[in-house]
Amino acid sequence: MPIIIQKFGGSSLADAARIRGAAQRIADTRSAGFNVVVVASAMGHATDELITLAEQVAALPDRRELDMLMATGEQASVSLLAMALRELGFPASSLTGGQAGLRTDGVHGRARITRIECGRLERLISRGEIPVVAGFQGTSDEGEITTLGRGGSDTTAVAIAAALQVSQAGGYCEIFTDVDGVYTADPRLVRGAVKLPRISYEEMLELATLGAGVMHARAVLFGEKYGVPIHVRHSQKLDQGTMISRENPNMEELAVVGCALKDDLGRVSIRQIQNVVGLQGRLFSALARANIVVDDIMQTEQGSSTMIAFTLDNADLPDAKQIVARALAELNDGEMSIEVGLAKVSAVGVGMKSHAGVASRMFQALGEVGITIHNITTSEIKISCIIESANGQRALNAVHSAFGLGLGSNATIAMQTDSPRR
Amino acid sequence: MPIIIQKFGGSSLADAARIRGAAQRIADTRSAGFNVVVVASAMGHATDELITLAEQVAALPDRRELDMLMATGEQASVSLLAMALRELGFPASSLTGGQAGLRTDGVHGRARITRIECGRLERLISRGEIPVVAGFQGTSDEGEITTLGRGGSDTTAVAIAAALQVSQAGGYCEIFTDVDGVYTADPRLVRGAVKLPRISYEEMLELATLGAGVMHARAVLFGEKYGVPIHVRHSQKLDQGTMISRENPNMEELAVVGCALKDDLGRVSIRQIQNVVGLQGRLFSALARANIVVDDIMQTEQGSSTMIAFTLDNADLPDAKQIVARALAELNDGEMSIEVGLAKVSAVGVGMKSHAGVASRMFQALGEVGITIHNITTSEIKISCIIESANGQRALNAVHSAFGLGLGSNATIAMQTDSPRR
Repeated sequence: MPIIIQKFGGSSLADAARIRGAAQRIADTRSAGFNVVVVASAMGHATDELITLAEQVAALPDRRELDMLMATGEQASVSLLAMALRELGFPASSLTGGQAGLRTDGVHGRARITRIECGRLERLISRGEIPVVAGFQGTSDEGEITTLGRGGSDTTAVAIAAALQVSQAGGYCEIFTDVDGVYTADPRLVRGAVKLPRISYEEMLELATLGAGVMHARAVLFGEKYGVPIHVRHSQKLDQGTMISRENPNMEELAVVGCALKDDLGRVSIRQIQNVVGLQGRLFSALARANIVVDDIMQTEQGSSTMIAFTLDNADLPDAKQIVARALAELNDGEMSIEVGLAKVSAVGVGMKSHAGVASRMFQALGEVGITIHNITTSEIKISCIIESANGQRALNAVHSAFGLGLGSNATIAMQTDSPRR
Repeated sequence: MPIIIQKFGGSSLADAARIRGAAQRIADTRSAGFNVVVVASAMGHATDELITLAEQVAALPDRRELDMLMATGEQASVSLLAMALRELGFPASSLTGGQAGLRTDGVHGRARITRIECGRLERLISRGEIPVVAGFQGTSDEGEITTLGRGGSDTTAVAIAAALQVSQAGGYCEIFTDVDGVYTADPRLVRGAVKLPRISYEEMLELATLGAGVMHARAVLFGEKYGVPIHVRHSQKLDQGTMISRENPNMEELAVVGCALKDDLGRVSIRQIQNVVGLQGRLFSALARANIVVDDIMQTEQGSSTMIAFTLDNADLPDAKQIVARALAELNDGEMSIEVGLAKVSAVGVGMKSHAGVASRMFQALGEVGITIHNITTSEIKISCIIESANGQRALNAVHSAFGLGLGSNATIAMQTDSPRR
């Protein structure tokens, strides 16, 4: 009997009624002839409430103690979910991360999974029980309770699927969330955006990083590494969502499967600076020490001098400005300029690797609607353009339509295998 | 350095401010030159909120799952308390019951402590850290999370004090609660009731059972068994409370140290019944199966027939009436009568063992204020009288005053060692 790992997020477990709904969904999957392992996040706002309490008792709460506190959120939700399943007549047992065998290193607040000891999970499954595992948490080899940090519950689900080798018997991992799946573009911004029935890990990774918040990149990376198919779907609807899996080499790939918009970006540009050895390391480690997350970095040569620009959240601009100004003063070199109110529109697709004309089509589409491109960055499977924030939604729609992604659109991409792609 | 176990109840940890207050109190004890081990209950109404959630997802929540759920309450409060201690500059580490080495049998919801593996507690103490242990919970030998049931947090504290043998080095156990200590009578009912500086385990046990809700009998029994001195005191005041310890044979004992009133009692009386073998077992096991807690049982012979009466909570009377009626119908014997609106006034004192005239003085005191005594039960160290509920407070005051327990009272009990006491 194949095993399906079903992961429920906080919004799917916000109150008793939602918990009963999730239990019914699990029961239906079990009744349809699958073994099920459930992974659950903390209920709705439980985590926020715990953090508020912590901040009320300590200005800088200890990380080990925060993990002890946070872990109670998932422990409460899994026990309630197991009760609700038993109420429906299905034998279920809740497990803390530690009880489920999830071992991590000892880095509190952002622990990494080191291994999963599957014995107890396997025993429960073989007895016909439904294990309900607390996501986001594990224990270190010293028996300390740890949490996995951002994307931790999704990662727990995918890691358990990998450890139980569910895909070998036709199983997979289901991530229940509050969106229908992965769309060709954010349907709140692009009318006619359509849900993708499938997407590759690589494409999902790019989209996750580019602002499509459906799944955290960490869990997708885990899925890619161990070949776990991941089905992202809506917790309140029965419709199929999006299946994230390995790229299928036998299929004719679309050049672009989706596009994304990341808004509220700023840019720091440094001009007229000598490209001395260690310059970049010095600049960006100063930013990292201040916990500033840099988005894209671009560097070009201009005659004898260098130009370095990077984008980041508008909110981090004031701090970044000070740090860069100090660095330039120490170097006694370079000129800094700052722009705010930028956005990034991106097109993503594994097929880009083998399709020509993808970049030019994107630039053309933006040109046709009168949008200036300020920066360009590319990877193997994506193209990103920095534009004015005010043009964001218009740019996304133009790109979405140029690649024929929309509902009822008939545009196709000229296919020209084995030629340079741009 | 002596070790003091400090236990904080839910009302002492109701919000962030109370938690900071408790942390300050612990820090002060540490600064005064003691090692401290903290035991904490769940915050204020946390337990009630969790039970409400459980009832919303399942009509009859599974006991194992309830333990998983309930245990989060204490885990949250100990982590917050440890954070607050670290904020004050005191190294502290929260521990779940299992991490603290508290092993129990596997009876979920009312597990019994089987042993305490003190290694981790001792290591923390020797490093100068303050362990903050989740009360009310432990783990079974199978690694399952269990809860200890009623009085569980007090019991955790006393059990840890016993396991660490704190009394050998002058240590003891402090129970912080929302009352000042143990009084000669409930100060809400008796003006002039005074706090007892000390009381024996035996006396405290009788008072706990007779309606003085300061401490649960289970923890007192544990303290008596292992000789752990227990200091019951107010969490928001610095005053000394009441020290519960072994009876001191060198002291002149008071005949009566306190009196108590248990209200809202009913009585079931069965008359004219043949005292056949197994009659009592049959009656009371039927009541136990219905989870009816019986207070006192009295049996007397009347000629060839027997009279059995028992008291119980008014609330349980309708169920008890049905059960007894069914039993009598099956036996085809006996007559049942029911009374409601009764109360029990009791006087307790170890000195009663060696003092004469205690019972007569109590009966006389009730008679002098015109109160009819409906039943009498006695033990080695207490006398209880069943009276009308309406007379309860007046009876308590009369008894309190008759034994000279009140503030400013000079009454003494005639001492007459080695003679029958009533």
